[in-house]
Amino acid sequence: MSSADTASVRDYLTGLQARICRALEIEDGEARFMDDAWSRPESSAGLWGDGLTSVLEGGVIFERAGVALSDVRGKSLPAAATVRHPELAGLEFRALGVSLVVHPLNPYVPTTHLNVRYLSAGNTWWFGGGFDLTPFLPFESDAVHWHRVAQAACAPFGDEYYPALRKACDDYFFLKHRNEARGIGGLFFDDFNEALPKLGRAWDDCFALQRSVGDRFLEAYLPIVSRRRAEAHGERERRYQLYRRGRYVEFNLVHDRGTIFGLQSGGRIDAILMSMPPAVGWSYRSPDAEYDARLLPFLTTRRGFPWAAAGPQDPLR
Amino acid sequence: MSSADTASVRDYLTGLQARICRALEIEDGEARFMDDAWSRPESSAGLWGDGLTSVLEGGVIFERAGVALSDVRGKSLPAAATVRHPELAGLEFRALGVSLVVHPLNPYVPTTHLNVRYLSAGNTWWFGGGFDLTPFLPFESDAVHWHRVAQAACAPFGDEYYPALRKACDDYFFLKHRNEARGIGGLFFDDFNEALPKLGRAWDDCFALQRSVGDRFLEAYLPIVSRRRAEAHGERERRYQLYRRGRYVEFNLVHDRGTIFGLQSGGRIDAILMSMPPAVGWSYRSPDAEYDARLLPFLTTRRGFPWAAAGPQDPLR
Repeated sequence: MSSADTASVRDYLTGLQARICRALEIEDGEARFMDDAWSRPESSAGLWGDGLTSVLEGGVIFERAGVALSDVRGKSLPAAATVRHPELAGLEFRALGVSLVVHPLNPYVPTTHLNVRYLSAGNTWWFGGGFDLTPFLPFESDAVHWHRVAQAACAPFGDEYYPALRKACDDYFFLKHRNEARGIGGLFFDDFNEALPKLGRAWDDCFALQRSVGDRFLEAYLPIVSRRRAEAHGERERRYQLYRRGRYVEFNLVHDRGTIFGLQSGGRIDAILMSMPPAVGWSYRSPDAEYDARLLPFLTTRRGFPWAAAGPQDPLR
Repeated sequence: MSSADTASVRDYLTGLQARICRALEIEDGEARFMDDAWSRPESSAGLWGDGLTSVLEGGVIFERAGVALSDVRGKSLPAAATVRHPELAGLEFRALGVSLVVHPLNPYVPTTHLNVRYLSAGNTWWFGGGFDLTPFLPFESDAVHWHRVAQAACAPFGDEYYPALRKACDDYFFLKHRNEARGIGGLFFDDFNEALPKLGRAWDDCFALQRSVGDRFLEAYLPIVSRRRAEAHGERERRYQLYRRGRYVEFNLVHDRGTIFGLQSGGRIDAILMSMPPAVGWSYRSPDAEYDARLLPFLTTRRGFPWAAAGPQDPLR
């Protein structure tokens, strides 16, 4: 494979989206994804592109799942997109990615998010991606499974990758205004130059890492869905799930760089906000102190959960 | 009344909160406000203050209503609070206000918002405030009543006030990312120097305008509640209400200066987010094109609704 083979990235992402949609449909058993293919001619802002937004709503298992492929090209990379690399602003660019958010119906099944992306501008490129899990009524065995697969996705690239990407995930998916993590983390990488020091500029290796993360997603998530999909639940669990989903909305609208950039740049709003939960409930106080006591200690690896620490005491290492 | 009589402002706001809470309880007939009095000693950021957050949840008529009085003092006005007046940053300040959001249960009863506020810093002060209405299944007669009372609130101060405050309201409560107004508007004023040219620096007149807006709120809103509270509705109307409430969340978390400033400055998060609806639903497409066709033409006075234009053709003048 040649260096900077963008066509291969697009092929990979197209296949990944199709595989994930198919697997989620099988897991759900009833609902189907609606496919919304779009293409946009060059806008006055010098942007054009195409994509496929696939949304499943009202499933037996998945209340809402969105998987979106987008391939956007532009004559001039917006400065806001390159905070860490101001020298790239103004260059011709191409941004490719698959984003996924799954909001299950059963409060015992965690919400999850996956993103894999590729950007090239001028002679520069980088890969980014990751997946993270947001349980509401968490199980330690699920968290261990999730992080074990995350670690396996990183293993071929060197031992330092899993702790680094896990920490980047914890750092990113954090609600500063609540001083609370969004979930139990997972993997996050952005800008290969800084986050992936040993891979450096080896395009093939970076693409391999992206594929490893993308390919492992179903292996990380589906076993948890299978285990929890039949957990009995009632109004109490549902109320707590709706309340906690409010945190998801707060993170995406207040902190998430991709969402904010999309809203500011006049993207396809319904596709950008397909990450929003299908039903949410805010209340002045948490509706369930007991569930809080069960959930909150899970909510960040930085607060001493066993797999937080890198090093010999980490049960996953 | 002497100039810059802050104690009078606090008295007025305290009474306004109590009157509104009492009137909403009577209108609801069953649910009661829970009062959460708070006071905060000086923080490391040099802020202290007190307040009373009153929240009603699960009413027969009001699914959620929040009315919050806050009185915050600080040693140094944050720069972010004074974008238009950078010269005030760093001055000792006091910020007083009452904020209200009401989310009714019946989709035919509009959501509403009121804010009246006062800020003093060094030798400078200003009043701000307003109220706006967000119907989901709108009635022209309600809109006419709402704007008629808004106009009456402004009338004692001169004919130019209503069009100016109405336009400021339309400009502020606008979802840029959707190119859509949040509701049908009302009144909005901020920073008396710019918005209220003729009142200029006459403290008593500015305070009188604030009181006029605050005092007229119940007269503007309650008749609409009374008219619509018994409208028959079912799943279809509820689904549309939940969907449209998503816009409310988007506005408050993405655009509202007060909310964003509160989240950034580490305020009392649950009080700041008491504006969030108790139940919300997003979907990829609008769940109801017919209701959209009924609502969207109402959603901004700037798009040619009769009372948009100031001047002789305005039916309210």
